[in-house]
Amino acid sequence: MKILIIGGDGYCGWATALYLSKKNHQITIIDNFIRRQWDEEHQLNSLVPISSLEQRVQQWKDLTGKTIHIINIDITNYSSLCQILNCEDKFDTLIHFAQQRSAPFSMIDHDHSIRTHINNTVGNLNILWALHDYSPETHLVKLGTMGEYGTPNIDIEEGFIQIEYKGRSDRLPFPKQPGSFYHLTKVSDSDQINFACKTWNLRATDLNQGVVYGYETDEINLSEILANRFDYDHIFGTVLNRFCIQVALGHPLTVYGQGGQTRSFIDIRDTIQCIEIACEKPAQQGEYRVFNQFTQIFSVLQLAQMICKVANESLNIRCQIQHLNNPRKEKEIHYYNSINTNLLSLGLQPTLLTDQTIISLIQLAQKYQHRVNLQLIPPQIQWKSPEHQK
Amino acid sequence: MKILIIGGDGYCGWATALYLSKKNHQITIIDNFIRRQWDEEHQLNSLVPISSLEQRVQQWKDLTGKTIHIINIDITNYSSLCQILNCEDKFDTLIHFAQQRSAPFSMIDHDHSIRTHINNTVGNLNILWALHDYSPETHLVKLGTMGEYGTPNIDIEEGFIQIEYKGRSDRLPFPKQPGSFYHLTKVSDSDQINFACKTWNLRATDLNQGVVYGYETDEINLSEILANRFDYDHIFGTVLNRFCIQVALGHPLTVYGQGGQTRSFIDIRDTIQCIEIACEKPAQQGEYRVFNQFTQIFSVLQLAQMICKVANESLNIRCQIQHLNNPRKEKEIHYYNSINTNLLSLGLQPTLLTDQTIISLIQLAQKYQHRVNLQLIPPQIQWKSPEHQK
Ligand SMILES: NC(=O)c1ccc[n+]([C@@H]2O[C@H](COP(=O)([O-])OP(=O)(O)OC[C@H]3O[C@@H](n4cnc5c(N)ncnc54)[C@H](O)[C@@H]3O)[C@@H](O)[C@H]2O)c1
Ligand SMILES: NC(=O)c1ccc[n+]([C@@H]2O[C@H](COP(=O)([O-])OP(=O)(O)OC[C@H]3O[C@@H](n4cnc5c(N)ncnc54)[C@H](O)[C@@H]3O)[C@@H](O)[C@H]2O)c1
Repeated sequence: MKILIIGGDGYCGWATALYLSKKNHQITIIDNFIRRQWDEEHQLNSLVPISSLEQRVQQWKDLTGKTIHIINIDITNYSSLCQILNCEDKFDTLIHFAQQRSAPFSMIDHDHSIRTHINNTVGNLNILWALHDYSPETHLVKLGTMGEYGTPNIDIEEGFIQIEYKGRSDRLPFPKQPGSFYHLTKVSDSDQINFACKTWNLRATDLNQGVVYGYETDEINLSEILANRFDYDHIFGTVLNRFCIQVALGHPLTVYGQGGQTRSFIDIRDTIQCIEIACEKPAQQGEYRVFNQFTQIFSVLQLAQMICKVANESLNIRCQIQHLNNPRKEKEIHYYNSINTNLLSLGLQPTLLTDQTIISLIQLAQKYQHRVNLQLIPPQIQWKSPEHQK
Repeated sequence: MKILIIGGDGYCGWATALYLSKKNHQITIIDNFIRRQWDEEHQLNSLVPISSLEQRVQQWKDLTGKTIHIINIDITNYSSLCQILNCEDKFDTLIHFAQQRSAPFSMIDHDHSIRTHINNTVGNLNILWALHDYSPETHLVKLGTMGEYGTPNIDIEEGFIQIEYKGRSDRLPFPKQPGSFYHLTKVSDSDQINFACKTWNLRATDLNQGVVYGYETDEINLSEILANRFDYDHIFGTVLNRFCIQVALGHPLTVYGQGGQTRSFIDIRDTIQCIEIACEKPAQQGEYRVFNQFTQIFSVLQLAQMICKVANESLNIRCQIQHLNNPRKEKEIHYYNSINTNLLSLGLQPTLLTDQTIISLIQLAQKYQHRVNLQLIPPQIQWKSPEHQK
């Protein structure tokens, strides 16, 4: 397949690019490296040092003989994007990772919320229009998030729900309860894509992904120059990855509030598998499919306890759990049950969270311990403005 | 009350400004007159000639002694908006009308879709952030549309729905099915406002308004210089108003497709009444309320038939109905039932559609017949791109 990966310099995108290239797909990456700029702006750094995309791709070529093309454009620039899609030999699949993906980033202030909104929603609209104008048969695979659903008191279905109401019934979009300006952009994207499939007969798979954890994939492991980013900071770091770093540093695990917040999780090795499945079994023309892309459900406190136990028992690290005031506005005790049968029925073989995965993440953090900036660990971004908190 | 009306130079905003000023509220209008520019860009004109906002406000002062303040800023410019809200004596209410409100406009091409998206969603985000930063106690009254809901096969509730599902239950946002890029922005606005009320403790009323028809209000009738805009063109004209103009010109009434499309409607005299109710009985701090703001439900064909009958019987005008290929992508036969009890229970006295209203609209069209550009009547904007229609 000829596959365009937008956002291929990022955490999920880079792992996916290598994996699909290894599988002999023809890969082109679009990225404008804005994420590297955001890191600089907020003085963040990946735990694992990452090479430039040029170096990475060169190394991949040297090791495997396979070519990955790179295009540096900002997808909020419509004409640049059109030039890529208006090619003779159309892409079979366009995988869209290229968004500002941190909830705390989007909550910092007005400026960050607007930048998130424009980057994400204009980027998404541009992709839809460019497909409409130049490449309507290309299958769009879009990364959404399980966070779009929030924490309803009913089971979470995959994108749609059959509602029985006052003696009538309909299959309707699942009601969403996004919990940050970032999540709001994702909900808006989903509505736009659904509309474009219905109205323009485009084809799309919306992958509502859980929180991704882990670092290693077979391809990333081949060389240090192929290293992937690993975010541990309070803005882009996600919970399981952050806990492993706290353990490695001998820090208490910082649980926000009571820690009953329950979320869906997925190993990065399954992310790339799911995306492969979505590409190889594409949506039909006119179809808007939603897959809930996760393998396991944990509460934050449960995760902290699991990690503490492994640290204690296998690595002999003493570890504490510390409850912090929750900087977010979210339910700390709630019902949570989500369905994820679509990907399983298409053949996903889940990689469940094992002690070994936790150990290897803690060891990764130990290896790069000298690179950790401790000030980046505690949460600094409040959902509620101070004047409203009284 | 001290009331800020954003978009006060428009059809609903101007009628509201005069009405609330007459009721002795202190009125400030924000408008950047972009709608007048869009009219020029597409060579559209209001059926009834409209004066500049300065002239209108001066005339109102001359006739009633009442002052309406005018501020010309674009609300997508955050710092300008903040300057207004960061005042000593806070506004009690901010009424937000200022959006690109035509579905066909948003479907013209990429450029129009992006301009609609940015104008509407950045404007809305700016208002939320400015309230958060400078005026969290001001009650936001926001104009949404009944079109956000689409045409589900179940009853449409007011913003939220109690869902029973697999033995559990929750009150969740009503699932929306927006049918154009314009409607998509409105859905996104609603989600943003709901989030801001929950997270920042703001207070808001979201008025999901039906299609507005009519022209006269007591205040508008006072003088020709106070005249309101009346859109009859294929971009901004709405169905009932457009039918009356077609009748006046001796044209067939152009029904899109079968005409079974069923929608909610409201007389402009009730629009202003509803907004007054929302202002005077505000949402509580932290509350996000949704009112479905309409009084009657008709199918497009039903409306055409009513208008033909009145034209025939009362004005002796022969009138035909013509079915055109539907330029939109929408169901032409569907279930439609929507609840509108919130405003009624707060005291709304509905002005139902009468023969007299239809007659006066046809007579208005006859009076200004010489101003009608016939080329602006047939639909020209297709939801589906030509290459997809085969
Ligand atoms: N990491 C997770 O836990 C997680 C969970 C659920 C969903 N997701 C989704 O998966 C996708 C990828 O996430 P990630 O963790 O790899 O993020 P990331 O920040 O590591 O990568 C995103 C990449 O997109 C690029 N990009 C952003 N805006 C761009 C633009 N306008 N033009 C061109 N390139 C642009 C960035 O430079 C970056 O390389 C995102 O959409 C995210 O919302 C991630
Ligand atoms: N007219 C209807 O049938 C109808 C039905 C349902 C909902 N609504 C909603 O009611 C509101 C008002 O509709 P209307 O018919 O009066 O529209 P309109 O086009 O007549 O008026 C909108 C006004 O807002 C101003 N405006 C737009 N963007 C602005 C910006 N960025 N900064 C400052 N001013 C800006 C325009 O110049 C214009 O004067 C809209 O939000 C619309 O979606 C209207």
